[in-house]
Amino acid sequence: MNPTTPPSARTEIHRKPQRAHYDTATINAIIDEALLCHIAFQDGGSVHCLPMACWRDGDYLYIHGAKNSRITRALQDSDCAVTITHLDGLVLARSAFRHSMNYRSVVIYGRFAAVDAENIKKSAFAAFIAHVSIGRNELIREPDAAELAGTTLLRLPIAEAAAKIRNWGVEDKNDDLDRRVWAGVIPLALRPGEPKAEAGCESHPLPGLPSFLA
Amino acid sequence: MNPTTPPSARTEIHRKPQRAHYDTATINAIIDEALLCHIAFQDGGSVHCLPMACWRDGDYLYIHGAKNSRITRALQDSDCAVTITHLDGLVLARSAFRHSMNYRSVVIYGRFAAVDAENIKKSAFAAFIAHVSIGRNELIREPDAAELAGTTLLRLPIAEAAAKIRNWGVEDKNDDLDRRVWAGVIPLALRPGEPKAEAGCESHPLPGLPSFLA
Repeated sequence: MNPTTPPSARTEIHRKPQRAHYDTATINAIIDEALLCHIAFQDGGSVHCLPMACWRDGDYLYIHGAKNSRITRALQDSDCAVTITHLDGLVLARSAFRHSMNYRSVVIYGRFAAVDAENIKKSAFAAFIAHVSIGRNELIREPDAAELAGTTLLRLPIAEAAAKIRNWGVEDKNDDLDRRVWAGVIPLALRPGEPKAEAGCESHPLPGLPSFLA
Repeated sequence: MNPTTPPSARTEIHRKPQRAHYDTATINAIIDEALLCHIAFQDGGSVHCLPMACWRDGDYLYIHGAKNSRITRALQDSDCAVTITHLDGLVLARSAFRHSMNYRSVVIYGRFAAVDAENIKKSAFAAFIAHVSIGRNELIREPDAAELAGTTLLRLPIAEAAAKIRNWGVEDKNDDLDRRVWAGVIPLALRPGEPKAEAGCESHPLPGLPSFLA
């Protein structure tokens, strides 16, 4: 993919194009730090926006849901837009107007398709567990046939996609630079707190966390 | 509002209804910890999902954008769905299938309207700055007439809304409880890192952060 060219008209970023990125490496790196996405879709004469757990495996974004749920049906029936956003910082300027936020976001357009093959479902769910906790697949019980059959696995090609990134400092007007106020960036990140073990699990080794949470 | 009754058919939570909350206090508490929302809307024959900074003032959710931008026009022309999600933890079970996430989310349906009155715009933008950094309004330059005129302020009534919360531990099957693996919750939260001051600002007092980031 040409890094400087949007893959479609609707992925082209017109507002603040200096923040736009269309290359796969940038897009995948943002997706790979995501635990959830927001999905916009139409159903029943209305637009909806639902948070869903997500993960990448190869060229696809995966989600899962209960078999025969409204969203898993609706997402196979029409195109959607999926957005992942990492809020990376508060940009605190010397004027109200120049305040901003640092972030990395990806939007993917397209149509989800169900994956029914049991071997692909097994490997996709194992990739999801590995995404959330390194080394965990070897320790837990894998899904049985009934659990696999009761879960719909959906995937969306990461093809019609664009990233938008702001990752720099304050852009104050020259006239405001002498103001006696702290200006700069407060970095923000999703961070783990103290693990809360279930009763009887206190002596087992703590789970491995992905590098983006460590 | 009756806490147990959804305000409309499309806000009723059918999937895992034990996680549903419809009371204003619960909904507002989730919104008040948000720095951004995701907005699903239709435009140009396609559905879109965009991240936007947001804040609450009274009974409205506010967003802002450049005057005459596509999104500020589109959001006044048709209904949208706005979702706020806080990812509060990884729920690590003894079987792959019972893994989950703790979260608090709010969905609001409705139509944004522009607020043109300069006094309301000034107070809404001051509320936004106060939401991001306590005590900051008194130190920075407030918006001038051109900055106010160039910014569209939009607000959505927090009326047709619902919250969904999972905030408990692992729900393993009895058959899996003897498995020798750590199970429990890894709490997650957005946390501030080391402030990065602009040149010349190092000696000014650090900005006050909202309680949900402290």
